[in-house]
Amino acid sequence: MAQLRVALAQVNTVVGDLEANADLVSGWAKRAAHRGAHLVAFPEMTLTGYPAEDLVLRRSFAQASRTAVDHLARRLADEGTGELAVIVGYLDTSRTPAPRLGRPAGEPQNAAAVLWRGEVVARYAKHHLPNYGVFDEFRYFVPGHDFPVVRLHGVDVALTICEDLWQDGGPVAVARAAEVGLLVCINGSPYERGKAFQRDELAARRAREAGAALAYVNLVGGQDELVFDGGSLVVDAAGRLLARAEQFTETLLTVDLDLPAARTAASAGPTVVAGTAVGTGTAVDAGDGTAMTVTRLMLTGEPVVAFDAQAPAVAQRLDSAAELYHALVTGTRDYVGKNGFTSVVLGLSGGIDSALVATIAVDALGANRVHTVAMPSVHSSTGSVDDAADLARRTGVTHTVTPIQPVVDSFHDALAAAGGLAGLAAENLQARVRGTLLMALSNAHGHLVLTTGNKSELATGFSTLYGDSAGGFAPIKDVPKTLVWELARWRNAHADRRGETPPIPEEIIVKPPSAELAPGQLDSDRLPDYTTLDAVLDDYVERDQGRTELITAGHSPETVERVIRLVDLAEYKRRQNPPGPKVTSKAFGRDRRLPITSHWREHPSG
Amino acid sequence: MAQLRVALAQVNTVVGDLEANADLVSGWAKRAAHRGAHLVAFPEMTLTGYPAEDLVLRRSFAQASRTAVDHLARRLADEGTGELAVIVGYLDTSRTPAPRLGRPAGEPQNAAAVLWRGEVVARYAKHHLPNYGVFDEFRYFVPGHDFPVVRLHGVDVALTICEDLWQDGGPVAVARAAEVGLLVCINGSPYERGKAFQRDELAARRAREAGAALAYVNLVGGQDELVFDGGSLVVDAAGRLLARAEQFTETLLTVDLDLPAARTAASAGPTVVAGTAVGTGTAVDAGDGTAMTVTRLMLTGEPVVAFDAQAPAVAQRLDSAAELYHALVTGTRDYVGKNGFTSVVLGLSGGIDSALVATIAVDALGANRVHTVAMPSVHSSTGSVDDAADLARRTGVTHTVTPIQPVVDSFHDALAAAGGLAGLAAENLQARVRGTLLMALSNAHGHLVLTTGNKSELATGFSTLYGDSAGGFAPIKDVPKTLVWELARWRNAHADRRGETPPIPEEIIVKPPSAELAPGQLDSDRLPDYTTLDAVLDDYVERDQGRTELITAGHSPETVERVIRLVDLAEYKRRQNPPGPKVTSKAFGRDRRLPITSHWREHPSG
Repeated sequence: MAQLRVALAQVNTVVGDLEANADLVSGWAKRAAHRGAHLVAFPEMTLTGYPAEDLVLRRSFAQASRTAVDHLARRLADEGTGELAVIVGYLDTSRTPAPRLGRPAGEPQNAAAVLWRGEVVARYAKHHLPNYGVFDEFRYFVPGHDFPVVRLHGVDVALTICEDLWQDGGPVAVARAAEVGLLVCINGSPYERGKAFQRDELAARRAREAGAALAYVNLVGGQDELVFDGGSLVVDAAGRLLARAEQFTETLLTVDLDLPAARTAASAGPTVVAGTAVGTGTAVDAGDGTAMTVTRLMLTGEPVVAFDAQAPAVAQRLDSAAELYHALVTGTRDYVGKNGFTSVVLGLSGGIDSALVATIAVDALGANRVHTVAMPSVHSSTGSVDDAADLARRTGVTHTVTPIQPVVDSFHDALAAAGGLAGLAAENLQARVRGTLLMALSNAHGHLVLTTGNKSELATGFSTLYGDSAGGFAPIKDVPKTLVWELARWRNAHADRRGETPPIPEEIIVKPPSAELAPGQLDSDRLPDYTTLDAVLDDYVERDQGRTELITAGHSPETVERVIRLVDLAEYKRRQNPPGPKVTSKAFGRDRRLPITSHWREHPSG
Repeated sequence: MAQLRVALAQVNTVVGDLEANADLVSGWAKRAAHRGAHLVAFPEMTLTGYPAEDLVLRRSFAQASRTAVDHLARRLADEGTGELAVIVGYLDTSRTPAPRLGRPAGEPQNAAAVLWRGEVVARYAKHHLPNYGVFDEFRYFVPGHDFPVVRLHGVDVALTICEDLWQDGGPVAVARAAEVGLLVCINGSPYERGKAFQRDELAARRAREAGAALAYVNLVGGQDELVFDGGSLVVDAAGRLLARAEQFTETLLTVDLDLPAARTAASAGPTVVAGTAVGTGTAVDAGDGTAMTVTRLMLTGEPVVAFDAQAPAVAQRLDSAAELYHALVTGTRDYVGKNGFTSVVLGLSGGIDSALVATIAVDALGANRVHTVAMPSVHSSTGSVDDAADLARRTGVTHTVTPIQPVVDSFHDALAAAGGLAGLAAENLQARVRGTLLMALSNAHGHLVLTTGNKSELATGFSTLYGDSAGGFAPIKDVPKTLVWELARWRNAHADRRGETPPIPEEIIVKPPSAELAPGQLDSDRLPDYTTLDAVLDDYVERDQGRTELITAGHSPETVERVIRLVDLAEYKRRQNPPGPKVTSKAFGRDRRLPITSHWREHPSG
């Protein structure tokens, strides 16, 4: 056996900011070296940030990434961390290009590099590309078929990237054939409810399949709509959990491993010289219809001098509500910060949605950066106005009251000649006046507007286009209404446990939900009760069930008809962005897809 | 040689409306039969409409499509067109499923069926799946590897679908190996400036490669942001153009072909019986790293009785401006109509953009369905108000004038306590008041709001979020400003040529562009002149060039810096839809992508 101290740097990168991301690697590599680590691994696409979307297709960006990884290797050596093997993710381009229509231009690859003694000594390109859900990697990358194995202090170490673990065959199968001692997997695996548990199971299973210890490092932080939750972990070759990092925080997880020493037999075949890929490698059946080429590189053959292993940290996984709440806070904080805003503004109606959003904003940014506005109309109850003020007092946010009736009246006057407004048109007008007031405050003071709509509303179109749905970030847009209440109760209980004042007045949690756009209006006038609604939405939207399946699943036919109709008709509302005929090869949105949060600029030196 | 009369039904389908699309096939099949055709082909995904996006992943939808194609075969026989071979596109699911993570659930296929004598006698699944630009077909489909050849009146006929022609190898290579006489390609190929010419070249080249005549039928009409321009065509085995259909119109193109009779040798091997795939087929190297399985089916071996060939129609291609204008009219008409609207409303400022959009709307819908509103503020010039009224008179649209100043003032009053509004905040307010007025008219009268922003504005963020960018459809969102002028002049000249009143007052075309949101304001205060701007945008956006390449291409460094900065910072504006943390497996927009225009409902019988 041979010992290794392995460090996993669970960091928060910024898409497009190659310099800041390189600084991040430099800083955390020093900490890893200080802790005596022999190897430190960073998350997927460390240098470019992840996901970089269509930036990946820009030649100048790919070139800058390739240059950055070479510079970084030299910099680490200059800074005294050259003896530490550093694994970073970056954007590369295929070294064996096979350009044709349908392969992404420039043949980008989602790559990992091993940096050692001032050089990039090995490069690995992601083999399994995900192309479902939030992932479109067939659009952006060509797959890799090389499998470098680096011998570090007598241990054979190999690399994988994220989806490589989720699909059968490929590098995990090749790792077993190549008798690897440690498999490092670098990830940008976004948070989703219940997924952390799946990841643990997966890591254990793949470690057993590979017959190797598995070190899994995940990204942390928010990038546009994705939140990366971290939760990096290490399992041994039997799949036993050895160490786990906390979720939603930047941290360095170190673990001392006892790994099988590479057998001499394993380096038979091509000659092995330090830091250089040798020969043409050995083709190995990857068990997925492809072959991968194993190349072996000698960094250091001698095991490290025996040291006393330290007990690794095994963080508890957060419970479901805490995890979700942290994801929303993280997503909000990073969206605001990475886009250069320092403050937010939101409408505080006295209802549960805006109460929860205000609380999330305070936890993300601090109360002094959160501005709330009550914008009562003639339909607003006194209770609502008071409840909003109560929440503002409890949380310490800046709170103002701007009655909207004079503005609403001026619109009615302006449109009197055109027949005036009544019913839904009059209701929507109130929401749009509020949206316009918030956007004006945003323009005048530089606050980002937070919208307060939840997923149940978004699903059913129970909101006003360019009204309550207008703003810069929507913290709870993917949270169903029943979970909104659950989170509010969780947050209050959390405060209780810490001896703090619960931020959300109980009255806001227990009152029947109402948009207060017409006299005596309740949500239940137009929607099924939220428990029923959310259950149907879960089956229809999450599980893609059709009408027959929904009814078979036990939902009443009337509710099913009603919900399906609402959801299908609300598709245009969910866009907000009017479509238009595409006539060029790069119409915005449809076939040009860039991150909103991106620090990439076409620099003079680019 | 053997004769065949081939018909191409260039039709306008509706996504999700399986019944209406089947009716369309029935109706056009009758016309084809009436004209004596032996074969008629319909566009890609005829029965489901194209592109159906995430509907494809819904089991109930795939099942309904499979059922619909079987029903259609029987219906055509019942209606007396059973002797006509009918090729339709539809959504199928793989008959040899190999489910795994990363392949779309249910293994949908983009398929074509040959309907004959009441049955589906052959099925072909698209082999090359496009996954770039507007296409995401790796997300939706699994590729096909079967290559059925049907012998119809002594001619061997085979099928391809759209991308199959654009990529090398695959079914075109197999067609040559299988000695096919006629290759039918069914398409959903969206309009793009200059693409019709490319298609002609491609069809000629692939016909020569296949050594077979090629019949290319394309979809026509608008579907959300895509416009299909038709332009169906037939080339002979030497690549010579024989027939071409007009663009942007539903039509039946018929052509009499003299084709090589299938050689007896070709049917050697597996026994051939009428209407049945025989044996296991023959594996043929497709030249693209895959093999396809050729199966041969005998429909009718006897050539048709010799008939006098008619001279086919060869429509002229439209010139570039006419083609673009027709695309915008088609896209607007179908978006409005397919979404169930009968009228539109738009703000008419007296500027060139709203003038062009009004003209497009009138050409798409008729003047009586187009409502325009002038919404002058204190910054609006008298000229602008008069020019808008002049355009309304020329085109015959309903025109009203609603001054916005009282409403703007009421907002200023409401925000006085919060410090008031000035500068950009005050400018944006005016645009949002106008947006709110138009949305109120939409809600009150059921008009769809047309926005009037052009691509140059959208690119540089020269517009107001939830102001002028608020609405239901954006006819010129992908048209750069310089082309807006070109189209206005073209439309006026077109009227001149037909002895009609040019719709757009010359004054509107020649005046310096201004948003009129501040005293004496001109676009040139904030943007480079549009000729310069559009040239940089073309290189930066369309060609994905970086800063260095842009400067090398001859653009001034100052302009490049300025434009890049504007474009990069406007990314959030182009969304309009605030992002929010994704926490479920099907967050709207990010990983649930449905067409807006869709007539699919989860029917009781579904």
